[in-house]
Amino acid sequence: MIDQNRIAEDNAAREPRHRAEFEALASLLDARGIDVAGLVTRAMAFSVAIPSWGVGTGGTRFARFPGPGEPRGIEDKIDDCGVIHALSRVTPAVSLHIPWDITDDPAALIERASVLGLGFDAVNSNTFMDQPDQPLSYKFGSLSHTDRTVREQAIAHNRACIEFGQKIGSTALTVWIGDGSNFPGQAHLGRAFDRYLASMEEIYAALPADWHLFIEHKVYEPAFYSTVISDWGSSYLAATSLGPRAKCLVDLGHHAPNTNVEQIVARLARVGRLAGFHFNDSKYGDDDLDSGSIDPYGLFLVFNELTEAELSGYADFAPAYMLDQSHNVTDPIESLIVSAVEVQRAFVQNGLVDRAALHGAQEANDALAASETLKAAFRTDVGPILAEARLRAGGALDPVGAYRASGYRRAVAQRRPTAAGGGGGIV
Amino acid sequence: MIDQNRIAEDNAAREPRHRAEFEALASLLDARGIDVAGLVTRAMAFSVAIPSWGVGTGGTRFARFPGPGEPRGIEDKIDDCGVIHALSRVTPAVSLHIPWDITDDPAALIERASVLGLGFDAVNSNTFMDQPDQPLSYKFGSLSHTDRTVREQAIAHNRACIEFGQKIGSTALTVWIGDGSNFPGQAHLGRAFDRYLASMEEIYAALPADWHLFIEHKVYEPAFYSTVISDWGSSYLAATSLGPRAKCLVDLGHHAPNTNVEQIVARLARVGRLAGFHFNDSKYGDDDLDSGSIDPYGLFLVFNELTEAELSGYADFAPAYMLDQSHNVTDPIESLIVSAVEVQRAFVQNGLVDRAALHGAQEANDALAASETLKAAFRTDVGPILAEARLRAGGALDPVGAYRASGYRRAVAQRRPTAAGGGGGIV
Amino acid sequence: MIDQNRIAEDNAAREPRHRAEFEALASLLDARGIDVAGLVTRAMAFSVAIPSWGVGTGGTRFARFPGPGEPRGIEDKIDDCGVIHALSRVTPAVSLHIPWDITDDPAALIERASVLGLGFDAVNSNTFMDQPDQPLSYKFGSLSHTDRTVREQAIAHNRACIEFGQKIGSTALTVWIGDGSNFPGQAHLGRAFDRYLASMEEIYAALPADWHLFIEHKVYEPAFYSTVISDWGSSYLAATSLGPRAKCLVDLGHHAPNTNVEQIVARLARVGRLAGFHFNDSKYGDDDLDSGSIDPYGLFLVFNELTEAELSGYADFAPAYMLDQSHNVTDPIESLIVSAVEVQRAFVQNGLVDRAALHGAQEANDALAASETLKAAFRTDVGPILAEARLRAGGALDPVGAYRASGYRRAVAQRRPTAAGGGGGIV
Amino acid sequence: MIDQNRIAEDNAAREPRHRAEFEALASLLDARGIDVAGLVTRAMAFSVAIPSWGVGTGGTRFARFPGPGEPRGIEDKIDDCGVIHALSRVTPAVSLHIPWDITDDPAALIERASVLGLGFDAVNSNTFMDQPDQPLSYKFGSLSHTDRTVREQAIAHNRACIEFGQKIGSTALTVWIGDGSNFPGQAHLGRAFDRYLASMEEIYAALPADWHLFIEHKVYEPAFYSTVISDWGSSYLAATSLGPRAKCLVDLGHHAPNTNVEQIVARLARVGRLAGFHFNDSKYGDDDLDSGSIDPYGLFLVFNELTEAELSGYADFAPAYMLDQSHNVTDPIESLIVSAVEVQRAFVQNGLVDRAALHGAQEANDALAASETLKAAFRTDVGPILAEARLRAGGALDPVGAYRASGYRRAVAQRRPTAAGGGGGIV
Repeated sequence: MIDQNRIAEDNAAREPRHRAEFEALASLLDARGIDVAGLVTRAMAFSVAIPSWGVGTGGTRFARFPGPGEPRGIEDKIDDCGVIHALSRVTPAVSLHIPWDITDDPAALIERASVLGLGFDAVNSNTFMDQPDQPLSYKFGSLSHTDRTVREQAIAHNRACIEFGQKIGSTALTVWIGDGSNFPGQAHLGRAFDRYLASMEEIYAALPADWHLFIEHKVYEPAFYSTVISDWGSSYLAATSLGPRAKCLVDLGHHAPNTNVEQIVARLARVGRLAGFHFNDSKYGDDDLDSGSIDPYGLFLVFNELTEAELSGYADFAPAYMLDQSHNVTDPIESLIVSAVEVQRAFVQNGLVDRAALHGAQEANDALAASETLKAAFRTDVGPILAEARLRAGGALDPVGAYRASGYRRAVAQRRPTAAGGGGGIV
Repeated sequence: MIDQNRIAEDNAAREPRHRAEFEALASLLDARGIDVAGLVTRAMAFSVAIPSWGVGTGGTRFARFPGPGEPRGIEDKIDDCGVIHALSRVTPAVSLHIPWDITDDPAALIERASVLGLGFDAVNSNTFMDQPDQPLSYKFGSLSHTDRTVREQAIAHNRACIEFGQKIGSTALTVWIGDGSNFPGQAHLGRAFDRYLASMEEIYAALPADWHLFIEHKVYEPAFYSTVISDWGSSYLAATSLGPRAKCLVDLGHHAPNTNVEQIVARLARVGRLAGFHFNDSKYGDDDLDSGSIDPYGLFLVFNELTEAELSGYADFAPAYMLDQSHNVTDPIESLIVSAVEVQRAFVQNGLVDRAALHGAQEANDALAASETLKAAFRTDVGPILAEARLRAGGALDPVGAYRASGYRRAVAQRRPTAAGGGGGIV
Repeated sequence: MIDQNRIAEDNAAREPRHRAEFEALASLLDARGIDVAGLVTRAMAFSVAIPSWGVGTGGTRFARFPGPGEPRGIEDKIDDCGVIHALSRVTPAVSLHIPWDITDDPAALIERASVLGLGFDAVNSNTFMDQPDQPLSYKFGSLSHTDRTVREQAIAHNRACIEFGQKIGSTALTVWIGDGSNFPGQAHLGRAFDRYLASMEEIYAALPADWHLFIEHKVYEPAFYSTVISDWGSSYLAATSLGPRAKCLVDLGHHAPNTNVEQIVARLARVGRLAGFHFNDSKYGDDDLDSGSIDPYGLFLVFNELTEAELSGYADFAPAYMLDQSHNVTDPIESLIVSAVEVQRAFVQNGLVDRAALHGAQEANDALAASETLKAAFRTDVGPILAEARLRAGGALDPVGAYRASGYRRAVAQRRPTAAGGGGGIV
Repeated sequence: MIDQNRIAEDNAAREPRHRAEFEALASLLDARGIDVAGLVTRAMAFSVAIPSWGVGTGGTRFARFPGPGEPRGIEDKIDDCGVIHALSRVTPAVSLHIPWDITDDPAALIERASVLGLGFDAVNSNTFMDQPDQPLSYKFGSLSHTDRTVREQAIAHNRACIEFGQKIGSTALTVWIGDGSNFPGQAHLGRAFDRYLASMEEIYAALPADWHLFIEHKVYEPAFYSTVISDWGSSYLAATSLGPRAKCLVDLGHHAPNTNVEQIVARLARVGRLAGFHFNDSKYGDDDLDSGSIDPYGLFLVFNELTEAELSGYADFAPAYMLDQSHNVTDPIESLIVSAVEVQRAFVQNGLVDRAALHGAQEANDALAASETLKAAFRTDVGPILAEARLRAGGALDPVGAYRASGYRRAVAQRRPTAAGGGGGIV
């Protein structure tokens, strides 16, 4: 754990400069008629969940290069998430992955998390890989498998996820499957979707009354010719077929090249089916890079649509926010801190958009003025506002700096054994 | 017009070799237990519509290089379509584009077409460019424009299309709009869709009882940041919002890179919303290249899904087929003949697929056998079957050869003045 | 012309707030150890050329929607470029397009430009469309055409461009051709390149001693299957084959999806073959959107490579900067002002990068610190520095605001007749 | 091993039908003036190497699902390659991957291979993952690493590959590295390339006089922001910098979306730098799907360029052919048989192209005739020719059928223990 005193000390050294920067920004915003206090409040109101698997080092099909002090299990993962939240004060929830994170003692898990100020977000099922003790293989699919017994195994696993989720206070199940095909003809595209829907109906039926079912689509990978739930259209078809508590989750990296993701957000919000997000960034495919590291303006534009959706008063609009990234070359804790702040930054920057000017320019088809209105907000460096929000909530002015100074990684590396690296999906 | 005697003469010279090839193929297929006669019947049952604008030379935003004998108006276009059908015997319908093809004397148009064995397919509205006499501009949109008066003008145009279509025997209106934006912020993505839907509701209300409304989506161009109806998800949202006679048209070139188009076909067919196709091929974007010229196996796979959809007995399954290509470097008549035959080829080849073997391999997850089952059909050169179908229907064994021999282009070039070329969309 | 007094008045009203913002920024930067004066100097040292064709409204193959007061010829274009420079003080050169901008009286052109503070950048040849009086067509190519007489016509045109360019003080010829094919097999890919090289050798031979030949590649469009100079590899092959004064021009929108353009910049700079840039932005293809409007961080990263190249002391490193955009929905003057400033912004922001920290993080493989070092510079709103640079050079603090207030567009619309709109490359 | 008698029996049952099909095809081709005997000879002259790693089941970063009887080491892999060659008679060489396939007894390896009619192709080095006993990690790169000691380790490994390759009769080293970065700024793009070149110079210097160095590029993955050797331009820069025996290898799946790969083949062949191929197919990225399974016409077009290059008499034209695929859902032996035959098919089909007609159409800019000339060859089902070539060489008429009938997989599954599956690159 990060000692709260260490954070305070670290902050003390940085506060004079922070104060100067915050005041300078406040005065700049004041000159534009913007109240900085409201933006600090906005920043403090924001949060984004951490996926438990995110605190481990990721890899590619070619290799995985573990870092020092990799978490050994869910307890270590919770600890790491606690560090992220202690420093950033923007990540109060953890999203678990079943069966990786399952435990016999949920109460102990809740207690461990609670001490760190953490609760639990959506639970995630996993039928895209085989577990050591699993009777039937998902090599050829899970919820859409041609064999009913495999589908039943996958349905049962999802039911078990709900049961475990209920014990830790989750109220949503996120279902992402890798089902699809690698050859034209391998799968009957129509029947595979039928089987998927039939399986999902059974899972939906097992959903407690206050739960939601989040459907996550992905354009390709691990299947390389066709994927059963490959796009938001398929996800929407499934959600509307299942019932009102089924919604569509948007992972920023799960789309075809060039896709305008923010418009998908607008469409799903409008019809009351936007489940929420898996945030990350990418350049090529589902690269799972750090949020905001490649295209920060794109992230800002997603939040622009969320702000507009909120202003539109759409029914059933309560998107869940989660990071979902693969940290191959950084300390995952650092990446998650920076990424959570990047998402928060995009949210806060959208609070700076002059909506009246934007809507006026839109109505007048003044494309240039509309563009400049958005970019004026995006160009504003709200860093001091985010720092102030952290400070007030007990976090660190410079969370990565404080983390590095804390020696946390060195310390856990001593008590957590070196993880195995080696090959990825290839032999 | 192409003299039927010329076709017969041309066929006579080629028939011995055709007969030999056809017999060789028949015996090969017979050895595989396939009856060639059924395939000839299948080929003769197929047809694909020609878009009236397709017989003119296309261009890019950089330039248009007209060819000799460009059609001057709808009468010339009908004549050219007549040539295509006379030779190919697979294109008995023409799809008109309003206002380009509108005429004061629909009866004369019907008569001119009828003589050539042609009828009329869906009518297409055009609100993506300004006409010389048009009061309000579509520069900033049409059916989704922020200004109600512009929307009303666009709605009225679509109503006029329906009225004209009724006079020539059409029973479907295809609506493709270029509405969208070039800058983030330029358009309110949610409100633009709302306005589009409200406009489409008025058009849908004007639809005669036996008509369908075909919604055509396109991922980008002419709008380069966002497009109101950019994907099949948006198209489906609109169609279900409008009513049961609104359906989604699939243009093969209107998707993001890497999109699995055949699965979209399967999805739309399954929910009874597949309007039909605009066939073409492409390598980069909406290149509008000749059908089957770049990825013939992709075209075959689209027809595989259509065949499967038909076998599945889905409700409301009656897709309309139309070519929609831009012929920049060929004689459009030649390209349309070859492309119509390519589409017919993919349809006929699918008649060769051993469905029992395919479905068996799918159930058994024998990906390799499934793939080989499809490819065995695709590899079969059904050219002699297509030629035989043409011969029996009065067409040409070698339609391009016969066309070239006919001197048609030379003849029309003499009476049709040279068209202007020069720049495209750029100054 | 924009009255200098009007600019001064406009500035006077805005200066108090500018001064406050500039001082606030100066103090923030001072706290980071950065001298704001140096950045103002950096901003003032930067310039980017305007393409003469950019001041007209662009279009797509579907349509062109002209705006009011479109320039009628090169004189009007020079005037519009003068307005852009008077307000932005960052665009002192115009790049001409031959034959569009050719004139019998170059001296008068020089004089007209000179009065507005304008000189001339590279001249651009045009063999991608046919001119009204042109004997042979470029429908099937120009410098790589199979017919020697067409190639000779294209070579002669390029020679004429050089001759005209010499009269107006240019020292570079930019050659972009649309040559390529729309069908597999249409062109012999090897021989087309051979013919291109042979033609370019003749052009290179005609180059005055102090001139450079800029080769511009483009992945596709107007050719849709293959393009003779489609990528930087082909461009580099051609340049090295021609001689040391042949270089490779990078247009930001001319690459395959997902391409890392900044690395291409690094590669070409390293081998002394980076000619310079055509700046624009894009989301789908060669959208020719306004620079920095879609992916501002991407533009920043291009300048990061340019800064690194400069620091590396590579030989022959003197890239030319030009905007090259298509303004379909905005007033082109406004778009060019904003875009020039966006490019300048990226250049100035790179002056803020802590290079020692960046290089240190790179050496230590501290990916997160390296990323944050770049983003810290990118997040700094250098707007007040750019405004200060304009102010000191006699430009406008708010160039678009001042332009709108000036009534220039209204005024020219009265004396310039309405341009024709209508269809683009399609019929 | 596959019993030669079993193959003969299997063939005997199929020969009557084969004979009928072959004769029918021969007579069809004869009518077109094509001699079938020449095509059988062409088919028999072709070969493509098998990568040793290809006989194991592949996976993705999400999971690997092993099949029964996975090879345990290089001996098992050689056995499996022997089966592929015995049945297909088109894969007489194996390409080894070091260190996976290294052995203390090269003579025994040569003997084992020789018995099966196998020799050895290029050796492949591996510095994209860490080996258990490796002192320094490649997490942040290998040949371009910032740390000299890591680069030296990677250089030494490549030298060891050459030494081992010499012992087994290889004459080429293929170098593919995963070096690159995941964040803008992480790597100095210029210096990384400098370091790569310096390392490669040392490897090149260690090359025996009769060896070639094959440089393989890849647009992305495992690095997701930048890759040191990302495109053919970078590969060519490196090859020309190193010396005449350095060449550029083209893996069909290693390009940006929409890339015209066949033109890259034409460019590299023309300048004498085409090393050869890694064949596979793909729909999304580097999917490593079975050759010819997604876009068979694309494969045909690659061989069209190879045929043209051969006819052009380019210097140093001797491309090496190898399959490089990931078999995730099929029996790798079956996939490799089918894929080898697909590549052979594309080669043989190109022997059917009427080159005089093609070149004539190209010279005349008759795009349609050129396209149809290629497609006429592609549409010809040369399956009976390939079968005849196998039959004459001692292989199987139906190699997959014979393989399945042989019970080979069942047999090896009994003596080879079940391999571990589970997660891929993710935790």
